[in-house]
Amino acid sequence: MTSTDKSTSNKTGQNARIAPQSLCDIVQKIDQGHLSPSSALDLCRERIEQWEPKIEAFTCLASDNILNTSISDGPLRGIGLAIKDVFDTADLPTQYHSPIYKDHQPASDAAIIALSKKAGCVPLGKTVTTEFAFFHPGPTRNPYNLAHTPGGSSSGSAAAVATGMAPLALGTQTGGSIIRPAAFCGVAGFKPSSGLLPTVGMKTFSWSLDTAGLFAKEVQDLAFATSALTNRHMTIKDSQPNMPTLGIARTHCWAEADEDYRTRFEDLLSSLSKFGFKLVDLPVTDEYIAAFHAHQSIQDFEAKQALAWEYQTHPEQLSDLLRQTLDFAHTIQPSDYDEARMIAELASQQLDESFEEIDALISLSAPGPAPKGLASTGSSIFNRTWTLFGLPCVNVPGLMSQDNLPLGIQIIGPYMQDHNSLTIAHLVERAIQRHLNRAG
Amino acid sequence: MTSTDKSTSNKTGQNARIAPQSLCDIVQKIDQGHLSPSSALDLCRERIEQWEPKIEAFTCLASDNILNTSISDGPLRGIGLAIKDVFDTADLPTQYHSPIYKDHQPASDAAIIALSKKAGCVPLGKTVTTEFAFFHPGPTRNPYNLAHTPGGSSSGSAAAVATGMAPLALGTQTGGSIIRPAAFCGVAGFKPSSGLLPTVGMKTFSWSLDTAGLFAKEVQDLAFATSALTNRHMTIKDSQPNMPTLGIARTHCWAEADEDYRTRFEDLLSSLSKFGFKLVDLPVTDEYIAAFHAHQSIQDFEAKQALAWEYQTHPEQLSDLLRQTLDFAHTIQPSDYDEARMIAELASQQLDESFEEIDALISLSAPGPAPKGLASTGSSIFNRTWTLFGLPCVNVPGLMSQDNLPLGIQIIGPYMQDHNSLTIAHLVERAIQRHLNRAG
Repeated sequence: MTSTDKSTSNKTGQNARIAPQSLCDIVQKIDQGHLSPSSALDLCRERIEQWEPKIEAFTCLASDNILNTSISDGPLRGIGLAIKDVFDTADLPTQYHSPIYKDHQPASDAAIIALSKKAGCVPLGKTVTTEFAFFHPGPTRNPYNLAHTPGGSSSGSAAAVATGMAPLALGTQTGGSIIRPAAFCGVAGFKPSSGLLPTVGMKTFSWSLDTAGLFAKEVQDLAFATSALTNRHMTIKDSQPNMPTLGIARTHCWAEADEDYRTRFEDLLSSLSKFGFKLVDLPVTDEYIAAFHAHQSIQDFEAKQALAWEYQTHPEQLSDLLRQTLDFAHTIQPSDYDEARMIAELASQQLDESFEEIDALISLSAPGPAPKGLASTGSSIFNRTWTLFGLPCVNVPGLMSQDNLPLGIQIIGPYMQDHNSLTIAHLVERAIQRHLNRAG
Repeated sequence: MTSTDKSTSNKTGQNARIAPQSLCDIVQKIDQGHLSPSSALDLCRERIEQWEPKIEAFTCLASDNILNTSISDGPLRGIGLAIKDVFDTADLPTQYHSPIYKDHQPASDAAIIALSKKAGCVPLGKTVTTEFAFFHPGPTRNPYNLAHTPGGSSSGSAAAVATGMAPLALGTQTGGSIIRPAAFCGVAGFKPSSGLLPTVGMKTFSWSLDTAGLFAKEVQDLAFATSALTNRHMTIKDSQPNMPTLGIARTHCWAEADEDYRTRFEDLLSSLSKFGFKLVDLPVTDEYIAAFHAHQSIQDFEAKQALAWEYQTHPEQLSDLLRQTLDFAHTIQPSDYDEARMIAELASQQLDESFEEIDALISLSAPGPAPKGLASTGSSIFNRTWTLFGLPCVNVPGLMSQDNLPLGIQIIGPYMQDHNSLTIAHLVERAIQRHLNRAG
């Protein structure tokens, strides 16, 4: 447990402190010989013993034997990895939160798992996902308030990082399945540009939209891990770059967002402006709104094909919501799908032009804090269009609601400008702390 | 066995006649009550008994029990389907021609398998692929000359259709793995626009390039099957459309093509011109040549990620060629990959502009007829760029070499104009017959 942990919560009714582990801290301590990789994993084990009974983030845990024999060299050596249970793992069951795949054991690791291990990560276990990363929720609870959802579909990964059970977790996003749970659980979340992290060996829901990504305590942890996994330069230097120009994306769904959240967002913008960020309004265009609606046609048309076997052979084992979605998807014609893709392409090109004058967009990560109840993991209306465009999105944690639930700020960058997007998110993350200190 | 079979070959040293089954004939006979679905499957079984010992197209065959219980309704009812062994099948082993996956049994069907069954197809068995659909060959022989390769990587699927063991087969193409074996085995082959047929549940080699496609006797069989699988209008009407304008794609590799093949191609062009086709030369641009070379960087950079688990955990069970390719792939930097993708995008946009004046391209399907020997499945230099651009490609059979080996003509259409590409390929197919009759 790092000594800089600061958050606490009495509302959760337990004594454990909400204290994510900093990946960069662990890496540094291991590099300097102040911590052994196996001791780093012991910290994860302690946190799991402490939190898992309350949170139910994991569907299965790696045996001590696997943990002890898995430690290898690499930039992420000693980093415990929580793996969303939509990625195939050769030595852990992979069940996609579907009874159709109860106790299913894949033959091989998904590509990103193999790359993670090569970078030194040690898989701690598989984390709760909604059914096939769609909407039907699992049992995971929000660490900040056990009566609230952690968000989804990457529910367990976000909650595992928030509670320090894992310093790094893998998730996926097709609508808002990384950014939303990261926001609800108060951790940094990264949905990279489409294809930056491989999705091979991941259960497909919609091949155009499914994107693999990461959860960690802070943005710099995400950047370090992405560097290690991709061999791309992503690490963030603390030397001050030029202050970025941010486009404020108050989308057409703005009125649906929680009022307190919106107020806190506007307050933050005032601070950002004072801190030197340049802010401009991004107009909401008809093309953007059309693309927002096109997302569902594309997602569902592809899902009905991707899940054709499950739908045809085990319809009674699908949740009602998924089965009805796939029933309806059979009314989406190929021409509807083709048109939706053209609409998305048009809006994406239009946004590309905006990015000529803007370094990144800033927006809300979700319509509000984590809703009460576990029956729904919340809405993706603030995420799905960016996913459709394949753009890098980062959830920046720090803000809290009046009920002491985390509120996320979303940074969205141009396609394949993941490093710059993470750098800007890091600047915003520090600015949020400064903003809170001012307010406090 | 249909009564219209015409090809024979004495060079193969066997008595069986090379007689692909016409899918459209079978469908029509079943529709009209002249053939039962189970009798249609019996024809496949007879052909398999006759040919399989010589050709070795299948890695495993469905049991009679599976065949008899699998007959369901749909536009392709009674159509036996040969499945390249890179698609997951829930009731047949899936081994990717790799010892790593010996006897591997997936939990579910790949999406295209489920869709095929829904359309009425009955899986006959899995067909030989090269290792992970790359180059290391399987045992399959060319039906026209057993000492020659059937092409690859979809070796077994092409050979199964050529010999009438299956009226329809599934293949995949990352470089030239559908068009080349179709050409070598004298059948119609279709690599649709990227993404038209789902690749979910197919072993990934390169996610940007891998494309699922089909083999059948004639182009109209491909069109009928594609309609049935996609619910898109693809069927070909015999009413004469306007004669198309074809761009002649004598690419920068032209000098590497067999001289007799090139001569026969030019003779065909003369006939096409006389038959009313409009022909224009497509210039070979620097951008095209750059894209040709970019293909390998993209393919190998993705393959090293897609096969990371196999490479890390079972390197000794990879073929030397694949292991060396993946060794080398580790020298391809992310910046090389990003640049290769930009080069491809640029050349693709340039070609799009050409398609404003041209309905489709016409080219060779391979550098020559099937080479002698089974150690190599031949070269993809006449295919890889079109795959990179995601364009629909059709192999049109009919021409033969002086050694009585099939020679393919390739039609390449604009992205997502699959129906028009198939229609043009059908016109060229009929024109080839007329051309041969004139010459004969």
